[in-house]
Amino acid sequence: MPELAYVNGSIVAVEEAVVSAEDRGFLFADGIYEVARSYNSKLVDLDRHLARLERSARMLDLPLPMPLPDLDRTCRSFYAQSGLPEAILYLQVTRGAGKRQHAAPPELKPTLVMTVRAIAKPTPSEFAVVTVPNNRWRMCDCKTIALLPTVLAKHAAVRAGADDAIFVEDDETVLEGASDNIFVVKGGEVYTAPADNRILAGVTRGRVLEIIGQRRLPVRVEHFKRDFMMAADEVFLTSSVLTVVPIVRIDGRPIGGGKPGPVAQSLCRAYWDLIREATA
Amino acid sequence: MPELAYVNGSIVAVEEAVVSAEDRGFLFADGIYEVARSYNSKLVDLDRHLARLERSARMLDLPLPMPLPDLDRTCRSFYAQSGLPEAILYLQVTRGAGKRQHAAPPELKPTLVMTVRAIAKPTPSEFAVVTVPNNRWRMCDCKTIALLPTVLAKHAAVRAGADDAIFVEDDETVLEGASDNIFVVKGGEVYTAPADNRILAGVTRGRVLEIIGQRRLPVRVEHFKRDFMMAADEVFLTSSVLTVVPIVRIDGRPIGGGKPGPVAQSLCRAYWDLIREATA
Repeated sequence: MPELAYVNGSIVAVEEAVVSAEDRGFLFADGIYEVARSYNSKLVDLDRHLARLERSARMLDLPLPMPLPDLDRTCRSFYAQSGLPEAILYLQVTRGAGKRQHAAPPELKPTLVMTVRAIAKPTPSEFAVVTVPNNRWRMCDCKTIALLPTVLAKHAAVRAGADDAIFVEDDETVLEGASDNIFVVKGGEVYTAPADNRILAGVTRGRVLEIIGQRRLPVRVEHFKRDFMMAADEVFLTSSVLTVVPIVRIDGRPIGGGKPGPVAQSLCRAYWDLIREATA
Repeated sequence: MPELAYVNGSIVAVEEAVVSAEDRGFLFADGIYEVARSYNSKLVDLDRHLARLERSARMLDLPLPMPLPDLDRTCRSFYAQSGLPEAILYLQVTRGAGKRQHAAPPELKPTLVMTVRAIAKPTPSEFAVVTVPNNRWRMCDCKTIALLPTVLAKHAAVRAGADDAIFVEDDETVLEGASDNIFVVKGGEVYTAPADNRILAGVTRGRVLEIIGQRRLPVRVEHFKRDFMMAADEVFLTSSVLTVVPIVRIDGRPIGGGKPGPVAQSLCRAYWDLIREATA
């Protein structure tokens, strides 16, 4: 079975999926997206992803192509056609196609593109990362396709032989990974950056914070600096695709003895329990 | 004759021009662009635009689809086919299409898209603009398609009934227009922001600075603040599409008595003389 794409109501093999060369997603990065995973042939937390999509759309005054309940049905129906029990659903909405001009005319029809792909690899058991300066714009709480800074950060990670990059402000404040959120464990407390305009509030970040709350683990949703992170007992990331992954090396230096820590591993198991329950 | 687009070697009507829904330009804003105008059936300063394209490509480690002399020939040949004596050539290069992953695999083939469109309107004789906070990333000296902040600034201008927006830093430093550079005339001196990483060094900005140099007008390429601009004798913008346009109103307040000033008008005429000479 070929990998499938959905483009404005048509389902085609992904290699044949095209959009206008004048789509505002292609010309201006004028669009938003979501990435959800599935397990046991069910999409995980699709409602939360679509709620965030709606929030991103509102922030940009970008019309969605259909009401949210219809979009939910369209996602589930498209995903079901893929026949892939463990997959990544990618969903992108742009302001539509039209003659290039920065200000969009009001009559444009939004573009909706989706793809489904099998998850090829198991969740990695550990990551090495590098830190990179946060050179991004000020609306990182909006999940837009203006991802070039993220691409450059990932390229820096690849060049360093690392798995991901973490954005750090000039004042050393640690923000988030290039495609994930970052947690630190220190002295029995769990830290993660607050969901202000400098990070994207990840769906899995939210789930892990809920698990931490249920377990009554001490948690501090506040900013921390790079030095604090480097001296942490554990560092881990959360991501809808990767779930929970211990970070054992940052900028070439081992973290927490260079081995996955007990809190990260326990939260990873708990998050997977939650996925299995939700998709049973 | 239909408006034409060029996509990776094929020339088609612009309405039929498509790119892969997995082009990195569409998914990640992983691309660069240039906009050049023509006059008298000749492209103006195409060599400078392509030199800047090459610089943008180098900054992103993005391969160009062909060597610069070939790209120059391809642009000129495509433009010639349009048969439009006064037109806008738009050129975009992306890192190519492939399965969505932030870090680009090295084997991708870059995507080259061009369009040519007639210039419908004469150069406007004056502009009203609004100022907007500079919320952009730190590589504004690279002409990338990650233009969402620019789109939002243009939308703010439209909402205010203005023609364009000017990015101003939190400390009130004036940077540039959303798609043009800004000059201020005060006490007989001409000011424009230096070409650091916070502005794009416009081709027309460069030409106007050359004209100013030839005329031995006092010029200061240095930062100035919003208050200084609001109290200026004249403010004007430069752009390859718009050439030189006096700004007569900023945030609803008249500038220089609310009428185009003599320096801007004289530089506009001189720049047009230069265009006519270069394309004779």
